[in-house]
Amino acid sequence: MAASLDVSQLGLLGFDVFGTVVDWRTSVARTAAPVLARHGVQVDPFAFADAWRALYQPAMEAVRSGARPWVKLDVLNRENLDLALLAHGIEPGRVPAAELDALNLVWERLEPWPDAVEGLRRLKRHVAIAPISNGHIAGMLRLARHGGLPWDVILGAEIARNYKPRPEVYLASCAAAGLAPGQVAMVAAHNADLAAARALGLRTVFVRRPHEHGPGQTSDLQPEQDWDIVADSLVAVADMLACT
Amino acid sequence: MAASLDVSQLGLLGFDVFGTVVDWRTSVARTAAPVLARHGVQVDPFAFADAWRALYQPAMEAVRSGARPWVKLDVLNRENLDLALLAHGIEPGRVPAAELDALNLVWERLEPWPDAVEGLRRLKRHVAIAPISNGHIAGMLRLARHGGLPWDVILGAEIARNYKPRPEVYLASCAAAGLAPGQVAMVAAHNADLAAARALGLRTVFVRRPHEHGPGQTSDLQPEQDWDIVADSLVAVADMLACT
Repeated sequence: MAASLDVSQLGLLGFDVFGTVVDWRTSVARTAAPVLARHGVQVDPFAFADAWRALYQPAMEAVRSGARPWVKLDVLNRENLDLALLAHGIEPGRVPAAELDALNLVWERLEPWPDAVEGLRRLKRHVAIAPISNGHIAGMLRLARHGGLPWDVILGAEIARNYKPRPEVYLASCAAAGLAPGQVAMVAAHNADLAAARALGLRTVFVRRPHEHGPGQTSDLQPEQDWDIVADSLVAVADMLACT
Repeated sequence: MAASLDVSQLGLLGFDVFGTVVDWRTSVARTAAPVLARHGVQVDPFAFADAWRALYQPAMEAVRSGARPWVKLDVLNRENLDLALLAHGIEPGRVPAAELDALNLVWERLEPWPDAVEGLRRLKRHVAIAPISNGHIAGMLRLARHGGLPWDVILGAEIARNYKPRPEVYLASCAAAGLAPGQVAMVAAHNADLAAARALGLRTVFVRRPHEHGPGQTSDLQPEQDWDIVADSLVAVADMLACT
């Protein structure tokens, strides 16, 4: 299958991470429920993971809108953990704060999708790879060490002190890599991420992750624009870019 | 030989790069002289490399002192190339600016010391590794791609928008990695770099590079403090830290 991207013309592949490279939902569900259960708090594991994640965009929006100064994602996730407990009718004080702090680190120990490490390794042989994620540098570093994600460099929100899909994040990441936007391809499972990247001149790679949000997922099942590449896994992206 | 550092207690090894990981002098000498010769400019290859490098500290000092706003290292190196030519009695205009721009990229294609890649690979199996260099992110990225330096993340001057040995560079690098200074060890061939790091609480690893400045080197031949580790190569550092 012919790809409409020539990897030799690119200087960097920038990756969305949460959902595109790692399966946050399964990891969060498996980790959170037992921790909470130890303190007598019963939750449906996946419902709790979804509730926690649902607070992600609104929390970043406070920063994107300028209503709140820049703050790293681990801080937002920790605040959102308290809010997710409250949304489940649970007073956060029922669980020791230190345990909630530890639970918050689950976002740095998410498991990669089964194709992710092989796909990244193959792509990296041909072109530099980096997260352009809303995760902070330390979180991306620990996630990479945990899952064996072989990034060349960590770019993204912290470089720009703002959150995707704000243009600053893509542009600051390209600038930090010393590249024009047209030399960078954004790889993501989310149409909105790619739309923001394309509007700035980046190339685009859509990876279908139809189970990111579980079996009932309704969003991002299909490409909503004619992205440069559409694939079902990072290994498939490597195949389409002839990255062996 | 027993080391006074326990790698399992560290979160990151931060590396000086120019001189510690890569041999800038040989690479610059080999590259610059033929480029200049093509335009009728004859220089002693190593003397020219030394002259270019001698302008490095003064140029950074303008930023460190606050006399000049933050600017990335490639800009300083390019300015210094003109100055190095002038110091050799050569009007920079004798060589097309585009060729000098291309020559300036030699700082992104320096060869690693023979032990560097193996040493880094072994260390990386046990602890995260990152440049804490005065090089900018794009330059460090391309240097890593060129030489196969397997960094987990790129930290250093650009993260802090200042130059070593200013404390901001070490502290911003530790903060970006989510670590306290005591969880980070600085690895360098330069006593001054380690002294600045130690003053902030970082651990210290001195690597002797007695030929960084050529056969007549007089500086940094020996450790000037009781650094936590003193070694003759990055492979030796890995040996001393039991990183197999």
